[in-house]
Amino acid sequence: MRNLDETTITQAVIARHAKTTNRRLKTVMTSLVRHLHGFAREVDLTEAEWVAGIEFLTAVGHTCSPTRQEFILLSDTLGLSTLVAAQNHRKPVGCTEATVFGPFHVEGSPERPLGADVANGAEGEPCFVRGSIRGLAGEPVAGAVIEVWQADAKGLYDVQYEAFDEHRARATLRSAPDGGYHFLGIVATPYPIPHDGPVGQLLDALNRHPWRPAHLHFRISAPGYETLVTHVFRDGDPYLDSDAVFGVRSSLVADWVHHEGGPAPDGRMLDTPFSTLDFDFVLNPARKEG
Amino acid sequence: MRNLDETTITQAVIARHAKTTNRRLKTVMTSLVRHLHGFAREVDLTEAEWVAGIEFLTAVGHTCSPTRQEFILLSDTLGLSTLVAAQNHRKPVGCTEATVFGPFHVEGSPERPLGADVANGAEGEPCFVRGSIRGLAGEPVAGAVIEVWQADAKGLYDVQYEAFDEHRARATLRSAPDGGYHFLGIVATPYPIPHDGPVGQLLDALNRHPWRPAHLHFRISAPGYETLVTHVFRDGDPYLDSDAVFGVRSSLVADWVHHEGGPAPDGRMLDTPFSTLDFDFVLNPARKEG
Ligand SMILES: [Fe+2]
Ligand SMILES: [Fe+2]
Repeated sequence: MRNLDETTITQAVIARHAKTTNRRLKTVMTSLVRHLHGFAREVDLTEAEWVAGIEFLTAVGHTCSPTRQEFILLSDTLGLSTLVAAQNHRKPVGCTEATVFGPFHVEGSPERPLGADVANGAEGEPCFVRGSIRGLAGEPVAGAVIEVWQADAKGLYDVQYEAFDEHRARATLRSAPDGGYHFLGIVATPYPIPHDGPVGQLLDALNRHPWRPAHLHFRISAPGYETLVTHVFRDGDPYLDSDAVFGVRSSLVADWVHHEGGPAPDGRMLDTPFSTLDFDFVLNPARKEG
Repeated sequence: MRNLDETTITQAVIARHAKTTNRRLKTVMTSLVRHLHGFAREVDLTEAEWVAGIEFLTAVGHTCSPTRQEFILLSDTLGLSTLVAAQNHRKPVGCTEATVFGPFHVEGSPERPLGADVANGAEGEPCFVRGSIRGLAGEPVAGAVIEVWQADAKGLYDVQYEAFDEHRARATLRSAPDGGYHFLGIVATPYPIPHDGPVGQLLDALNRHPWRPAHLHFRISAPGYETLVTHVFRDGDPYLDSDAVFGVRSSLVADWVHHEGGPAPDGRMLDTPFSTLDFDFVLNPARKEG
């Protein structure tokens, strides 16, 4: 431990964790140290670059607040979130794919009855969303907790507004006895991830844009099933092939059908434009460990 | 870009940087993404662990302030700082080795004449430090800027005190025409790195102690020579083999000689204990790039 150099330091750090009683932590830290050092060695990281890295991470930390999680944005934009989501939700064919959680979910959004106007005043073309929640064998999943959240026509979630007072375009529903669900939301539009902070600066330096293709978030949970965190994307969106956070899956891209007016799914005759979206979800049985 | 999964995501992120005009940034980010994903894949990182990681990094960021750099502490304790210092200062045999910079350096510390009482009231046994600054061929380096800084008998640097008003145990000197230097400092003592934050919690979880062996920091710069950032350690220190930040080099461990009193190097006859430390530095010629 007294004659460390660039070739011996990695093993010395790993050896220092020999007495670590938390075996999983030891495994994780061993791999982390090896890859962190492997990176610095591979690019022959300079001291100026190391300083830039320290300053970048510090700025990311200082940008985090109760309403903004810049480290999640960083993880999302580096594809780490997609990798972690994918490797934690390996599923049989036929199940709805998972995708990234994103930083805009809120625990405990208001419970609404099926059919409710979830938009609750959020700006955007009304969109009637409907479908079913089923298991792999086609069995309906009744009483599933369905959380939905989406950005408005300005590309902002309710919680991003300074004057945020009540939840808009965000709610918790429960599936019907036949597994069906429906609600009135709004048509999703593309939006840029928050890019006025250090992650935005990094994207700029990488000549990357901050846009996400239009999507509607879902989190669906029911006893006996693996919780599903996913989006439904909108076909035709210009950013489907360049999502800033690598969240798109072909199987999650759906046809959002535009209507200039006429009979709506809720029985009304509308003389203003609206859209409809049909999407069925298939849940994976819960894993043993839960 | 629409059908990313755990095997294709890494290449997709790297491909996204194809248009990056800053070639060095592209190289660094390609390696970073590959190693970051390699780590997550190797340990099959769970979503709960990912959340813990996000929360840890956020806490590290929030602990950073104008007087505390928790990300440098993290880099130091994971051996990254030692690796970067080593690979940026590959030197011919005979040169003084470099070691970690640490978070307690201050730019623009007060200039003092050779022989000055650099302690300036800092608590600790007086220590007469002296030696020379030379080049590889033995040539004296006159007028080298010698910055020194050290912790006091309580294990704290001046800037760590709430009531910090003036610099103590910290100064800038210039070597004499014959390359010699001398000043009155204090005997170094071991100290724990700040461990009341997230890095301290990580060390705890890893069953690691936060102690650094006693040392005196030097930064020595002179035109035509590579700037040397290093420490002089104290032989016999109990933490020499387990430095929390992996900074010890055998060649930097010196004999700090204790005297119960008697004739001091400054010509005085002292009736109180003091120490002496002799250490000579050899600078590397400057690299072409500077
Ligand atoms: Fe979103
Ligand atoms: Fe120190």
